[in-house]
Amino acid sequence: MSFSRSAIFAAVSFYRFARQFKTVAPYVLGTATTLTYFYTHNPFRQHHAAVLDDFLLKPSFFNMDVSDTYPDKPLESFMAEPITNKQILQKNAPNSYQARMEIFILKLQKQFCQSLEHFEAKQNSNSRFLIDRWTREDGSGGGITCVLQDGEIFEKAGVNISVVHGKLPVQAIEQMRARGHQFTSRNVPLDFFVAGISSVIHPRNPHVPTVHFNYRYFEVTDVDGKIHWCGTDLTPYYLNENDCKHFHSVLKKSCDKYDLSYYPKYKKWCDDYFNISYRSNERRGIGGIFFDDFNDSKQEDCFNFVKSCANTVIPSYIPVVQNNYQRTYTAQERDWQLLRRGRYAEFNLVLDRGTKFGFQTPGARIESILMSLPPLAKWKYGLDLKEDSPEMKLMKVLKQPREWV
Amino acid sequence: MSFSRSAIFAAVSFYRFARQFKTVAPYVLGTATTLTYFYTHNPFRQHHAAVLDDFLLKPSFFNMDVSDTYPDKPLESFMAEPITNKQILQKNAPNSYQARMEIFILKLQKQFCQSLEHFEAKQNSNSRFLIDRWTREDGSGGGITCVLQDGEIFEKAGVNISVVHGKLPVQAIEQMRARGHQFTSRNVPLDFFVAGISSVIHPRNPHVPTVHFNYRYFEVTDVDGKIHWCGTDLTPYYLNENDCKHFHSVLKKSCDKYDLSYYPKYKKWCDDYFNISYRSNERRGIGGIFFDDFNDSKQEDCFNFVKSCANTVIPSYIPVVQNNYQRTYTAQERDWQLLRRGRYAEFNLVLDRGTKFGFQTPGARIESILMSLPPLAKWKYGLDLKEDSPEMKLMKVLKQPREWV
Repeated sequence: MSFSRSAIFAAVSFYRFARQFKTVAPYVLGTATTLTYFYTHNPFRQHHAAVLDDFLLKPSFFNMDVSDTYPDKPLESFMAEPITNKQILQKNAPNSYQARMEIFILKLQKQFCQSLEHFEAKQNSNSRFLIDRWTREDGSGGGITCVLQDGEIFEKAGVNISVVHGKLPVQAIEQMRARGHQFTSRNVPLDFFVAGISSVIHPRNPHVPTVHFNYRYFEVTDVDGKIHWCGTDLTPYYLNENDCKHFHSVLKKSCDKYDLSYYPKYKKWCDDYFNISYRSNERRGIGGIFFDDFNDSKQEDCFNFVKSCANTVIPSYIPVVQNNYQRTYTAQERDWQLLRRGRYAEFNLVLDRGTKFGFQTPGARIESILMSLPPLAKWKYGLDLKEDSPEMKLMKVLKQPREWV
Repeated sequence: MSFSRSAIFAAVSFYRFARQFKTVAPYVLGTATTLTYFYTHNPFRQHHAAVLDDFLLKPSFFNMDVSDTYPDKPLESFMAEPITNKQILQKNAPNSYQARMEIFILKLQKQFCQSLEHFEAKQNSNSRFLIDRWTREDGSGGGITCVLQDGEIFEKAGVNISVVHGKLPVQAIEQMRARGHQFTSRNVPLDFFVAGISSVIHPRNPHVPTVHFNYRYFEVTDVDGKIHWCGTDLTPYYLNENDCKHFHSVLKKSCDKYDLSYYPKYKKWCDDYFNISYRSNERRGIGGIFFDDFNDSKQEDCFNFVKSCANTVIPSYIPVVQNNYQRTYTAQERDWQLLRRGRYAEFNLVLDRGTKFGFQTPGARIESILMSLPPLAKWKYGLDLKEDSPEMKLMKVLKQPREWV
């Protein structure tokens, strides 16, 4: 009896000690258990660094579509160990959308990170992605957060994936019902699974636009409801019409392969979504495509359409970086970039549904969600733009979205 | 007939032309009609500048309480023409809380702006407050927004007053009812009047704290419900315990004159309100006092208590500026200030009820509401604070608010 009491006491003391340590030391990391892979003991990272030079020689790689099949060489294909056990992932891959989506986003994350590091390497900068692989304390999934900060070309670049499952609370189900979803069950939590990739890139040079994309596969068990929340959009600071046309035409081509009505519909949805209504309807950027709860046709077609859109990220954005990253810029242009980033932060904090959902989710990894915020942003009272200035040229497009293709 | 038709046509065309011009030219100014008082044609501004030197000689002025009686010399006492017609204001002053509050905030705005400009003048900086007096298009009031930007001492300082009346929508009444207010009328909009002063000061030096205050008089006609929303709070970047003690003791003294229970109650309310819950309950700063819907005792006492709190702003904050504005600082300290300002922006955009209310109010003057946002802010992924660093010392107080008096 006395033994078991002291054992309990010891266990409780250790737990309290451990909790206390946790709150003091990595306080910003929230409640998720976090494993940070450092260069030296992450075989993925080591491999990634080793092949970067080699990779530089093959820019055609940028245009290679990422597939959803389990790779022969995972070390070359992922930024870190998958969230799901490798053997299980490989075994389920051919028949499960969950596994296929996880593999797809793992590969896309790697390829996009590599594309960005390529620019840093070319400028002889040592900035590379920090890789945080994290798992949720209750075993309900995790993610891989890759962030490159203070680079020569990218002031902040975040590429996140997360694979999370659990019970969807009744309130969340009711909100989905209100948006038009059919659920048979009432007043019971339902099993859900979500796998997604999201990214925001803040380049240093104001002539290089910011890009954001977010592709998610969401499954609720009740009615076999498979839903995709997706989109890619571009936020330039100065308007280069050729870049805008290029960006939109790549997205359009990808949409047109599936349905000619998709691009106009999702382009408009994007303009409507990224709208800062309280700033007299100023858009965040020049748009792209956006769709929510995409469930139009049969499952395999939906899935392939989403993959196809996600695969446009590199060919639509990387050439725009390529065209502009070596341009010179003035202090005034930098200033305008920082002011526009203020608006970017506003949109993400006030209006973005994904961010709001994150704030309301207990145990959400806030550091990963808010990696989207700009590294530096400005606000100025009573900004006055000169008519015919390049800043006003952009502003007119933000107020009145244009058709680019 | 033909004459009147062409007259109508001309009027409509002119109106359309004017609307169009308005959306293009001062696009940031929203829907409120704005008059900007420039130095040369604002007699208030001219007087203000002329007396600044004289004022510098009398620092005792900082400790002079502002009253609610109509001044003998309005030019010396206000930043601009009152919102309400001067003759009406003067006539109603002795018997109307609406008039008394308007006069009080007009005077407090002037005194606080003068206190801040005093520091700029001492540093031979030419930065002074820009004065925007604006009125609502439908004649339902207006405000005076005073902003000083890019000063030597104050990177951004905003001091707003607004005096607005109109019909409170049923939805807003229902929200107030849900918070415990008694209203006799159901399903009808009620007349409301609100007069308030709000201010956020972002100093350049990271050793000078940011201060925010907001004092409002709110009247709904139905049940003679007079309500005050109020508070002052301090956001230091580095912890100077003497400053915190000074700040809180001035607030406590002011509360204690009315009721010994007020300070502990409103200090706790402040700690609870300025809490960034999704950042693992990190407070925005070291608090102050905060209360909402204050209606405890009889009207005259409530009014005097609020005036007394608002009168602590200068004696609680100005000496803290005085103590620190000439301290040297490092790039690292500046960096930390910008990161904390990122949190400040987050709180204001995501959590602050006043800001949210503004976003939802049609015709609200967003530029005035968002003057609270920092001039420059930073976000960094995975910030890691060293134990025993000055930054961690502040963080511990933000996580676990302390009693200062």
